[in-house]
Amino acid sequence: MKIVVIGGGAAGMAAAASARRVNPTADITLLEASRHVSYGSCGIPYYLGGLVEDVSRLVTYTPEEFRRSRKVEVLTNSYVKDINVSSKRVVYVSEKGEEREVGFDTLVLATGARPVVPKIEGLGLNGVYTVRFLDGAVKLKEDLARSKRVTIIGAGYIGLELAENFKRAGREVTVLELLPRPMPNIDPELAEIVSRELKKNGVRLELNKRVVGLKGDGRVEKVVTEDVEYETDLAVIAVGVKPNVALAKRIGVELGESGAIKTNSRMETSVKGVFAAGDNSEANHIVLNQPVYIPLAQTANKMGYVAGANAAGGSEEFPGVVGSAITKVFDLEIGRTGLGEEEAKKYGVETKSVLIKARSRAGYYPGGRDLWVKLILEKSSNVIIGGQVVGYEGVWGRIAALTLAIMNRFTPKQLVFSDLPYAPPFNPVWDPLIVAARVSLK
Amino acid sequence: MKIVVIGGGAAGMAAAASARRVNPTADITLLEASRHVSYGSCGIPYYLGGLVEDVSRLVTYTPEEFRRSRKVEVLTNSYVKDINVSSKRVVYVSEKGEEREVGFDTLVLATGARPVVPKIEGLGLNGVYTVRFLDGAVKLKEDLARSKRVTIIGAGYIGLELAENFKRAGREVTVLELLPRPMPNIDPELAEIVSRELKKNGVRLELNKRVVGLKGDGRVEKVVTEDVEYETDLAVIAVGVKPNVALAKRIGVELGESGAIKTNSRMETSVKGVFAAGDNSEANHIVLNQPVYIPLAQTANKMGYVAGANAAGGSEEFPGVVGSAITKVFDLEIGRTGLGEEEAKKYGVETKSVLIKARSRAGYYPGGRDLWVKLILEKSSNVIIGGQVVGYEGVWGRIAALTLAIMNRFTPKQLVFSDLPYAPPFNPVWDPLIVAARVSLK
Repeated sequence: MKIVVIGGGAAGMAAAASARRVNPTADITLLEASRHVSYGSCGIPYYLGGLVEDVSRLVTYTPEEFRRSRKVEVLTNSYVKDINVSSKRVVYVSEKGEEREVGFDTLVLATGARPVVPKIEGLGLNGVYTVRFLDGAVKLKEDLARSKRVTIIGAGYIGLELAENFKRAGREVTVLELLPRPMPNIDPELAEIVSRELKKNGVRLELNKRVVGLKGDGRVEKVVTEDVEYETDLAVIAVGVKPNVALAKRIGVELGESGAIKTNSRMETSVKGVFAAGDNSEANHIVLNQPVYIPLAQTANKMGYVAGANAAGGSEEFPGVVGSAITKVFDLEIGRTGLGEEEAKKYGVETKSVLIKARSRAGYYPGGRDLWVKLILEKSSNVIIGGQVVGYEGVWGRIAALTLAIMNRFTPKQLVFSDLPYAPPFNPVWDPLIVAARVSLK
Repeated sequence: MKIVVIGGGAAGMAAAASARRVNPTADITLLEASRHVSYGSCGIPYYLGGLVEDVSRLVTYTPEEFRRSRKVEVLTNSYVKDINVSSKRVVYVSEKGEEREVGFDTLVLATGARPVVPKIEGLGLNGVYTVRFLDGAVKLKEDLARSKRVTIIGAGYIGLELAENFKRAGREVTVLELLPRPMPNIDPELAEIVSRELKKNGVRLELNKRVVGLKGDGRVEKVVTEDVEYETDLAVIAVGVKPNVALAKRIGVELGESGAIKTNSRMETSVKGVFAAGDNSEANHIVLNQPVYIPLAQTANKMGYVAGANAAGGSEEFPGVVGSAITKVFDLEIGRTGLGEEEAKKYGVETKSVLIKARSRAGYYPGGRDLWVKLILEKSSNVIIGGQVVGYEGVWGRIAALTLAIMNRFTPKQLVFSDLPYAPPFNPVWDPLIVAARVSLK
């Protein structure tokens, strides 16, 4: 049996490893267009800020290590030019610039995503970056060393993680956001707390700013919005990613409404024998029971695990996601799961919600910090469909618990009676989650 | 309507507050034998160690505050002498030493628990303490100021929390434990990590030691075990608690096998109109579907909430517990939920288990710490029935997630595909829980 995996990011590597686990004898080939495989793009902001010194720390396996441990043929700097589905061959340009072919019985498309770049003038100037790949990150870090003022376009996760890290590196940081708030995937009341944290840490956050161009003489000097120009030495575009589906389209793989690849729960595409996984694919949203495009590293790993196993003759199913995500911006932890209130409206789900402020530890125990919990309920069923938590400690655990509560269609009453652990260093005796659930009973 | 609550600890206060919420006009009387209500006994170790300076910080409401805010008649220093079920009257000795009566339509027994004291010689010596009530804690703290060497009998939660705090207060600390390990409610492999943490922090932990007596001339000077005598200036007995059921027995309330009060899910006892809640009562164990006695503060609050609501004419049900608990001993966080492997054997449940060691953050993100996760599965059903986690950060969240997984009878595969949040400061991309679940698939 011959399996080809295209892409050496999270999904591709998980797929190859999983295929090997299921099938000890298959020929498995992994093709990666860049020179790195198995890298943690999520770590790039911390590398830029100096928290991670060497970029090699972001790499889990070198091609050689993976080749040896998993018996997978890993071909880096190998760009896929074409796929012939009927003859089951992948045509690629090898490291040495030669056109080669490799045959497959099953194929996994793990082609990832690319940064979205708005159509504006000046994108070709020096000092303009996106953040996604390791080589680009190394170049950006070198450039950062020569730059005093940095402007980030986009106040989502990556934009804000960059803001923190550029401040850590001692830069003057401006963040420009099109929307009236940062962190578009959490609701406005909580985004307000994020805004305060950014300002407290000296980040200039400019909301309602549509960037229309970049100006400069060879190198970027100004980021131009509809009403204001911002002088800068460096600009980073962080407005999101889009699925990399060029190869998929070429072979007639069906895309979903989101523009990402449509798969079933086995990660099979519409083309027989072709699987897809990772940031190029949709996933089933367990609350909505419909496909969504939420490209995240952990999801990519799981999709890869399933796609690879099935490509190798196994039988795995990916049940989908509920939209859990977390980040840390300076001292503030920001987490969300399920549907946000605005998001629910978009999908026509009528909601009610509660927002409470609590403390992270028993009142008498030193070091307790503020913690805000928002619960979002579906009005018709009274089931918890979303949760958002921000605060200075303990956010991961609350989001993890809410994730399982949402996956299991808990009512607030069921959350009240969940046997969450309690001890003074970790929570008040009525945990913030239970307080929020109790308030939502009223 | 007249409601009487006996006991002003967690369960009693929750019951009174809940009754008031359900019934705005009822006459509610709360009788408390000591001078304090609404105190967090869980905070006593931290008060003794000086992390909490003033004992009044452990009190959430004074009697006066609760009286005013909830319109509940709070009678402190009021000792219940008898209950007449047929005439529906409680006989108590008031603060002024006078015998009084108060009538009820419904009654909530929230009489709590008392420390277990082994039948040994020398209990009457000065310098010998248990830890449960605020007045005793104040006295113990005063005595601690004069004592250099402290011996704790019992290495359960409270014993170890005391050990940490006595070290914090600069004392020489010895802990004597009957069993071959500390923390009897976690399994031996993890208890071993706890032992190391204690030793690392200078606590002398003596296992397999049965205490047979206390010796001294007026004041304790030695704790005597079967084979060794330990010189000490102070001895604290922390070998557990037993339900305080004297009043319940007197009125014919049925007790369970554990010796604690048997209730239904409405917290009704076998005597009509009499409810029970808190550390005097059993709770349904959701995994075992049978009553257990696991006296903990959060459970007491929830039981009180249910008992009080129903006593006031409402309709609430307490679904029970899964045995979640957490503590922190020096830097080590120790959590457990569901059944332990030894515990499962005791109940005749055949198990398999996995134990993994992981890191608390992405490999490249600074500050990551060790985290051990044990999962216990029921062999016949392959359902997760228990989880134990120890480590230096992130334990609460893992136990919270496992609690919900166990409440929902998750298989390891379902845990693998739980959409747990991920970001480099909080976990590796395969969270330790997911790693443990994956290993248990094999």
